[in-house]
Amino acid sequence: MALDSLQSLFLDELKDVYHAEKQLVRALPRLAKAASSPDLKNAFTSHLRETEGHVRRLEQVFQALGETPRAKKCDGMAGLIEEGKKILEEDGDENVIDAALIAAGQRVEHYEIAAYGCLRTYAQLLGHDKAQRLLQQTLDEEEAADEKLNALAEGGINQAAVNAGSEDEEEE
Amino acid sequence: MALDSLQSLFLDELKDVYHAEKQLVRALPRLAKAASSPDLKNAFTSHLRETEGHVRRLEQVFQALGETPRAKKCDGMAGLIEEGKKILEEDGDENVIDAALIAAGQRVEHYEIAAYGCLRTYAQLLGHDKAQRLLQQTLDEEEAADEKLNALAEGGINQAAVNAGSEDEEEE
Repeated sequence: MALDSLQSLFLDELKDVYHAEKQLVRALPRLAKAASSPDLKNAFTSHLRETEGHVRRLEQVFQALGETPRAKKCDGMAGLIEEGKKILEEDGDENVIDAALIAAGQRVEHYEIAAYGCLRTYAQLLGHDKAQRLLQQTLDEEEAADEKLNALAEGGINQAAVNAGSEDEEEE
Repeated sequence: MALDSLQSLFLDELKDVYHAEKQLVRALPRLAKAASSPDLKNAFTSHLRETEGHVRRLEQVFQALGETPRAKKCDGMAGLIEEGKKILEEDGDENVIDAALIAAGQRVEHYEIAAYGCLRTYAQLLGHDKAQRLLQQTLDEEEAADEKLNALAEGGINQAAVNAGSEDEEEE
């Protein structure tokens, strides 16, 4: 598809994020399984439910535009998920692995915040009011998910990861 | 490397972002070349200079930790750059392509904001004061780069992209 109008770019980016969210629905259960902290497990599981909602919300956006929902391979999310998978293959301390899973999760959230921020703005500029509302709802949930991961890191997981290293690592 | 301590995770993520920044140094000239707006061209070129500085700053961080700078393939950034490259292959209106380049650039900045946010926090928790200061400087520059792209989008490029479509696209 040629990028001959903002509408074309909008549809192109919608297909991209639709693919990204579907990839994430498949990846989140593995992150939840790999997490040791029950709170982190819950965060990934509850974000899985939200992400399933984001897929349905994108389908509503396509519908509001009179378009059939279609996905287009999203290389950005594929790379981010690949990074997350590598953590699942690592050995180590469960608290450090939890910290690494949070870091990977936050990159995913930031990717989505950037993507939905642009999409919401395009919808607004194009006068697609319903699409704009739906995209803003998802953007709000992605920002909340990022803050939740941050709160879990600061609320104990990072400190537990510091303690994991205190017996065998020397400080600067 | 096993994730047996926060120090191990810190080093692992440093190698990842070192690779990411080096990939970005190679990609930014192509984004600058593809941009039509002189302001956007300048933004990419000036961020290239900053990014070269981020590579050197990461080398200082490795040095402060008594480590040799080493890169580890960063799949996340590789995917984001792949997305950017696809835009370079698209035909279309120059304003719409500029808007797409901004969207791709903002995803890269958000990725880096998430990465440096975690790294800065790990440095702080581990008591690596010099590393923390250096990482915070880069984090501030990534946030400023994201805001600059936003300002360019809102300052005319998005509206020019709307106008590009106004002759051949129907509104909802």
